Amino acid sequence: MQSTKIQHLIQLFSKLPGLGPRSGRRAVLHLLQSKEKHMQPLLNALQDATHSIQTCQQCYGLDTHSPCQICSDIKRDNQQLCVVESVADLWALERSAFFRGQYFVLGGSLSAVRGVGPEDLRLGALRQYLQAKPIKELVFALNATLDSQTTMYYVIEQLKGFPIKFSTLAHGVPLGGELDYLDDGTLNTAFQHRKDVA
Amino acid sequence: MQSTKIQHLIQLFSKLPGLGPRSGRRAVLHLLQSKEKHMQPLLNALQDATHSIQTCQQCYGLDTHSPCQICSDIKRDNQQLCVVESVADLWALERSAFFRGQYFVLGGSLSAVRGVGPEDLRLGALRQYLQAKPIKELVFALNATLDSQTTMYYVIEQLKGFPIKFSTLAHGVPLGGELDYLDDGTLNTAFQHRKDVA
Repeated sequence: MQSTKIQHLIQLFSKLPGLGPRSGRRAVLHLLQSKEKHMQPLLNALQDATHSIQTCQQCYGLDTHSPCQICSDIKRDNQQLCVVESVADLWALERSAFFRGQYFVLGGSLSAVRGVGPEDLRLGALRQYLQAKPIKELVFALNATLDSQTTMYYVIEQLKGFPIKFSTLAHGVPLGGELDYLDDGTLNTAFQHRKDVA
Repeated sequence: MQSTKIQHLIQLFSKLPGLGPRSGRRAVLHLLQSKEKHMQPLLNALQDATHSIQTCQQCYGLDTHSPCQICSDIKRDNQQLCVVESVADLWALERSAFFRGQYFVLGGSLSAVRGVGPEDLRLGALRQYLQAKPIKELVFALNATLDSQTTMYYVIEQLKGFPIKFSTLAHGVPLGGELDYLDDGTLNTAFQHRKDVA
């Protein structure tokens, strides 16, 4: 029998996204067997993050201060706003480091099935953002799902008073992608949006 | 750019066994976005475990007290001792819950490649254990690798003064295993140790 404290800890780890009972157990055992080297640093980092990380009240990303590093970076283009669904998407775009404008985390996508309505998205905050800042182009970097595309058109509809150009990520064959393994929808989209090469 | 605190936390999670950069990021984001519901309980459980979980000085398993729950359970058979390499193996055997004797965690297996010598195993402690307790059978539940099998014979050699019966786990085709997918060694062993059925 494992101690109930160990069981409880394993249970909490197992419920983290990407982990299951097996990896939860391995992680906990690893931590318990090297308290000085691994457990304590993790504990300190978690404690530190719990106290210091907050949601930026401008873009709704996460940082130690609000407005966050990105929002307060004067070197970034403040005329381009990239709308993403989640903080994870913001991080993904920042990792590829090609976009130098500002972000806004919408908070999800509309879905009748998941019960997400317009009131669950940060539409009011987005409108306030656009009123306060000189945004000229709003780039939608949403998932390529039906829900997200519906959400994009809904948001555009809600913002139609603003003198803004709306754009969205290109859809098509991913780089390195093999046609044989692509779904029909992607192939169809890529074909419809084919480009002249010569 | 992510805050360095978030990056540090992601790095620590990514280094846990079974996790990588991607699952580390997902886990951290999940925690940061639900501080009350997930971060705080995890923090509390980690803190609690750090302070209360210790190595049992009898079997070298982990528990809130030493001797641990298993070692001090008078309902368990104290004439059978199961020798395992690691705490993970002890947990695995306890999960299947068929063994009702005592355990001893050896601490690894001999390996010239990995630089593990006899001095790295708990041989002295094992000898003390056997001197103090009325063990009649010592069951080796070690990995089915060459290193572990070598280790078993070495340990038996070291304990030859004791009036103990030594046994080891059976090797063969795992339940549900398909012959076609088995390695040659297992197949060979299973064939050599074939049993009469009628």
